[in-house]
Amino acid sequence: MKPSIPKGTRDFSPSEMTGRNFIFNTIRKVYEKFGFQQIETPSMEMLSTLEGKYGEEGDKLLFRILNSGPVVEQIKEKNGDVKMSDITEKGLRYDLTVPFARYVVMHQNEITFPFKRYQIQPVWRADRPQKGRYREFYQCDADVIGTNSLLNEMELIQIIDEVFSTLGIQVTIKVNNRKLLYGLVESIEATEHFQKIVIIIDKIDKIGEEKVLEELASLGLNEKQLEKMRSAFSASNTTNDINLGILDDLVIGSETGKKGVDEIKNVLRHFGAYYWVKPDSSHQYFNVKNLLQLDLSLARGLNYYTGMIFEVKVNDERSKFTSSVLGGGRYDDLTGIFGLPNVSGVGISFGVDRIYDVMEECGLLTDGITATSSTQILFVNFGGEEERVSLNYLQKIRAEGIASELYPDNTKMKKQMSYADDKKIPYVAIIGSDELEKNLITVKFMKTGEQKSITIEELISIIK
Amino acid sequence: MKPSIPKGTRDFSPSEMTGRNFIFNTIRKVYEKFGFQQIETPSMEMLSTLEGKYGEEGDKLLFRILNSGPVVEQIKEKNGDVKMSDITEKGLRYDLTVPFARYVVMHQNEITFPFKRYQIQPVWRADRPQKGRYREFYQCDADVIGTNSLLNEMELIQIIDEVFSTLGIQVTIKVNNRKLLYGLVESIEATEHFQKIVIIIDKIDKIGEEKVLEELASLGLNEKQLEKMRSAFSASNTTNDINLGILDDLVIGSETGKKGVDEIKNVLRHFGAYYWVKPDSSHQYFNVKNLLQLDLSLARGLNYYTGMIFEVKVNDERSKFTSSVLGGGRYDDLTGIFGLPNVSGVGISFGVDRIYDVMEECGLLTDGITATSSTQILFVNFGGEEERVSLNYLQKIRAEGIASELYPDNTKMKKQMSYADDKKIPYVAIIGSDELEKNLITVKFMKTGEQKSITIEELISIIK
Repeated sequence: MKPSIPKGTRDFSPSEMTGRNFIFNTIRKVYEKFGFQQIETPSMEMLSTLEGKYGEEGDKLLFRILNSGPVVEQIKEKNGDVKMSDITEKGLRYDLTVPFARYVVMHQNEITFPFKRYQIQPVWRADRPQKGRYREFYQCDADVIGTNSLLNEMELIQIIDEVFSTLGIQVTIKVNNRKLLYGLVESIEATEHFQKIVIIIDKIDKIGEEKVLEELASLGLNEKQLEKMRSAFSASNTTNDINLGILDDLVIGSETGKKGVDEIKNVLRHFGAYYWVKPDSSHQYFNVKNLLQLDLSLARGLNYYTGMIFEVKVNDERSKFTSSVLGGGRYDDLTGIFGLPNVSGVGISFGVDRIYDVMEECGLLTDGITATSSTQILFVNFGGEEERVSLNYLQKIRAEGIASELYPDNTKMKKQMSYADDKKIPYVAIIGSDELEKNLITVKFMKTGEQKSITIEELISIIK
Repeated sequence: MKPSIPKGTRDFSPSEMTGRNFIFNTIRKVYEKFGFQQIETPSMEMLSTLEGKYGEEGDKLLFRILNSGPVVEQIKEKNGDVKMSDITEKGLRYDLTVPFARYVVMHQNEITFPFKRYQIQPVWRADRPQKGRYREFYQCDADVIGTNSLLNEMELIQIIDEVFSTLGIQVTIKVNNRKLLYGLVESIEATEHFQKIVIIIDKIDKIGEEKVLEELASLGLNEKQLEKMRSAFSASNTTNDINLGILDDLVIGSETGKKGVDEIKNVLRHFGAYYWVKPDSSHQYFNVKNLLQLDLSLARGLNYYTGMIFEVKVNDERSKFTSSVLGGGRYDDLTGIFGLPNVSGVGISFGVDRIYDVMEECGLLTDGITATSSTQILFVNFGGEEERVSLNYLQKIRAEGIASELYPDNTKMKKQMSYADDKKIPYVAIIGSDELEKNLITVKFMKTGEQKSITIEELISIIK
C-alpha cells in the first residue's frame, strides 16, 4: 500500500519545525513579557460546547468524532433511523476562544481576574483546502478576561506590533468596532439584518466593495441606505484624522454607535499618548513599527464580537499574501452561554501557519532560523577500540551540554561525511590508530575544510 | 447550560502548564544533545494507516472522525445498510511510531539515514479512563531509523537515565529482547502461539505470574512447557550476572533466540565498556544513576517489536505509581507495511502525563518549577496622569525584556495587591502624586513587605 495523509493536513520536517518553533517562541516570549500565562484545553470538546458558536457555516465545518462502540450495528438495528446525536457527541475544537470561555466558566473559582491567558494549540476545520488554508492549523491566542479597560486593546496592538517587527514582516494592523458598525446599521434603520450585514461586509476583501453593496441591496437595503454604507467604506481610504472626524456623522442617532466611536477614539488617542510622541505621518499618526489603520469595512465573521475588532494583513513588498494573519476583538458575553454572564474579554489570535508561509515567501527563513540540527560535532565510527574511545570522548562533550553524535555504524567514510554535510554539522571528529596512540582527536572544520589534531579539552573549548 | 469536557480529557491551568513544560523541555534538551531532530505529523491519519497496527484491541480504541457532508441523510437513504468505511475514513493518531513509519516512507527521498527524529505530540485512545490513564495524552518519542547498530539501544538507555535523573525520579530501566522471547517459545515448540503468548506475558505486572501461567496453560501449553516459562520469569529476580549465564540454556535449539541473547549481552557489555568503569553492584553492575535490569518477563504489548525492548517503572519510595512511564524497542520492518522494506529502527516513548503525576506524588513540582507567572513587576493603576506615566515606565522595563504588567483597571488597591499575590509577582510599583512629582517609583517587595522609593533605572537593575 502507498501511504497518504488526510487532505489539508501536513507533515513537518526538521527544517520546517525549527522555523515554526522560531515563530512560536517569538510569540510566546512577547506574550509572557506582557504578563500572559499559558493554559491548554483538550483537542476534543463536547458538541454542545462547540455547536452554534461559529454560525451555521461553522457547524458544518466541525470535525465530529464517531462514538465508540458498535455504532454501525446500532444503525443497522434501527434501519438507519438515526440522528446525528446518536452517532457523535464530541468534536475537534474549531478555535481556541470558545474552549477558553468554557474553561473560564468551569474554573471560575480558581481564577484570579482579570485573567491574562495565552494558548498555543492546533485547531481543525473541514474547510476546502487551498493555499494558506489548512484543515489542521495552529492558533496562538492571547485573551484578557474580566476587565472592560481599553488598556487591554492597546496592549494587544502593541503585542501585535512587536511580534511582527521581531519576525521581520511588515504588516497593516486594522482596527474597527462592532458597536460602530451596529450604530451605522442602526442609523440606516436596518438592525434586523445586523448579523447578516456583518457577514456580507466581512467578505469585502474577497469579493470587493461593489459586490458587497450588491449583496446588501439584495437584503432589501435601498439606495439611500447603501449610500451611507458606501461612505463608511470610503472613509477608510483616507487618513485617520479625517476618519475620526466623520465617525460621529456615520452613527448619528445611535447610542451604541456613539459608544463605539468613543472606544475607537480612546484606543487610538491613548495609544498615541502612550508613546509620548507627536504623530508621525509616515506611520498613520501612530508611532508603531507597522501601519495601524482604522478600517470601517473591517467586520470579522464571528458572532461573538461586541467592541473593538482587529485584523492584520501582510503589507510587505516581498509577499503576495492577501489573507489575514491575525484576527481578534472584544466579546462582552462569551461566557454567558456557559452560565457566567457579564464577563467581558478581548483577545487576538496569530495564524502561525500563514505567518510561516509569508516568512518563506519573504525569504525570512534564513539558515540560522531553520538550522536542521543542533548537533555540533559528529564522531566518525571506525569500530573497535576507536569506537570505544570515541564514546568516552562523547560522554565528556555531552556532559558540557554540547549536542554531539557518534555515527552508529562502522561504514564507509564517505557516507559518514555526507551525513554530517546533510545535517549541517559544523565539526567532524576522526579517531584512527594514530590519534589513539597520541591521545588526540583530528577535527575537520566542515565550513573551511581545514583539519587539525587537538586534545579533547581544546576541542570542547573550540566548540564552546 | 453547564459546560463539561469529554471523559478522560483534561484542562491544564497555568501552574500545571509550567510543570509540564519543565518536563517537555528536559526531554527535548536531552534528545537534542544526542543529535535528534524534531518532526510533527497530523493529528488525523487515514484509517488505512492506523488499522491493524495495534492489534484487535487497538483498532477498537481508535477515535474515528465522522466523514464531512450529509452522512446522516446517506445512512437514511440506504436504510441503515452501511459499513464503517461508509461513514469514517480518518482517525486520530494512536501513537507516534506508526505515523513516523508512514512519514519515513513518504519522505524517504528527502531523509538522510540514519535518521534520528524526536516528536512531542498528543495521542488519543478510547480506553476506559482511570488514574494515570487518559484518553488524550502526550508522547515524547525518539527513534533512530536506518541502522541496525546496537549503539542506538545503548544511547537510548543513556537518554532514559539522564532524563529521569534530571527530573529527580528514581526508576528501574527494564530491558528484554523479543528474539529471546521467540527463542524461548521456539524451544518449547509453541511458536504458533507466539503473538498470543507475548500479549499474555505483557499482563504480568497487572495480573501476576501465576495468572499468566494459568492463561498460558489455557492456550494449551503443558506442564513441561510452563515450567520453562516459569524458570525464565524467575531468572529475572536474581542478579544480572546470573541471568546472562542462563540465557543460553533458555533458548536452546533456537537460532533466533541465540541472536536475542547475543544482542542482550552486547548491549549490556558495551554499556559497561562505555563508562570505562568496573561494574558497581549497587547499580546492578551498570554505572547509570538508575537501576538497569534485564527482565525476561518484559514483553511489551505491541506487535511490531522484533529486538531489544525497554520499559521504565518508577522505583521511588515517595511514589505508589505502578504503571510504566516509558516504553520502546526495536522494530525491523515497521516501514515494510507502507512499502519500504528492510529498514530497521529503534525508539522510546516517554509518557509525560504519567511522569507529571509521579513528580506531583513525589513532591518534585516545587515552586520554582510551577511558578504560575513570569511577571516580575506589577504597576498599580491609579488612572489619569499616574496611569500614563506608569505606561511610559512599563515600556522601558519591557524593552529590557522584563515581563511586567499595569493593572488594567483603576480599582481598589486591595484588589490590585491580591492580584499580584495570586500571580506571585515579586515586585509591585506604586506611582501616586508624590512619586509623580519626584520622578520616583515606590516599590513594594512582596516577599518581605519592605517598600522603597527609587528611580526607574534603579528598579530595572534590581529586577535584573
